[in-house]
Amino acid sequence: MAKEIERKYLVKLDTWVPQDGGVHFKQGYLNSQKERVVRVRIEGTKAKLTIKGVTTGVTRSEFEYAVPVEDAAILLDNLCEQPLIDKHRHKEVHGGKTWEIDVFHGDNEGLVVAEVELASEDEKIELPAFIGAEVSSDPRYFNSNLLKNPFKSWGKA
Amino acid sequence: MAKEIERKYLVKLDTWVPQDGGVHFKQGYLNSQKERVVRVRIEGTKAKLTIKGVTTGVTRSEFEYAVPVEDAAILLDNLCEQPLIDKHRHKEVHGGKTWEIDVFHGDNEGLVVAEVELASEDEKIELPAFIGAEVSSDPRYFNSNLLKNPFKSWGKA
Repeated sequence: MAKEIERKYLVKLDTWVPQDGGVHFKQGYLNSQKERVVRVRIEGTKAKLTIKGVTTGVTRSEFEYAVPVEDAAILLDNLCEQPLIDKHRHKEVHGGKTWEIDVFHGDNEGLVVAEVELASEDEKIELPAFIGAEVSSDPRYFNSNLLKNPFKSWGKA
Repeated sequence: MAKEIERKYLVKLDTWVPQDGGVHFKQGYLNSQKERVVRVRIEGTKAKLTIKGVTTGVTRSEFEYAVPVEDAAILLDNLCEQPLIDKHRHKEVHGGKTWEIDVFHGDNEGLVVAEVELASEDEKIELPAFIGAEVSSDPRYFNSNLLKNPFKSWGKA
């Protein structure tokens, strides 16, 4: 088991320029309850199953297992809750930390978020110029919630 | 992916004599909805994660992955729906087929069922003397339902 400590931010779209083509992610959920998220993900040519427990602050228990891509494709299309999450993930290094920038498609088109993993909850990090508001503890941005309540349906202020 | 074709029967307790000590099974569910059962099981010294789709007749899609026992122990105690299923599984060969006999404990104490896996839905099998009524398509006997509605709480006719 790993403890996942990460911070999530909105990306300023007028400032961020993609550095690569990104990797295509297709993911779905066998359970999207917050107590026991079970995620199936195909990322590029690999697939994995991830189980996450309750989030406490920015920390969450996480278990990850590689699975055959053919299994994942059947699980996603036939067993997972629908619809699926479809996005491209870009990776960039800034200030010695790897940032993952997710560009969502489909019902979440227009949403771009950046995540960074920390060694401890109080680790100080340098924020790249394209980083906007922090949304780490806003459940609307959990991928499991972006299915039920996609970005396109949010009321714009 | 495997297709699981199995028949399940009640065991006549006055006729069945255990042939071995059985293997201890502790299992729980990260999802027990019929569309996407996600089961965590420790059996003896091994552990696995099993994902099952909808049952059609006596056939069901099944995906199985080995996981570390330490992970399974945390998943069972901290992430799975409670309570857990606790049982001993005995294996016996009769008429060339392997029968699995599950002796339940806890809230399902008193329930003993036998399962046999078939090569095809219409395969003819020889029933051992201890086999009682068939319950293959009775959802009350699904392990995932024995948690929500355990054997001890069933009204006896």
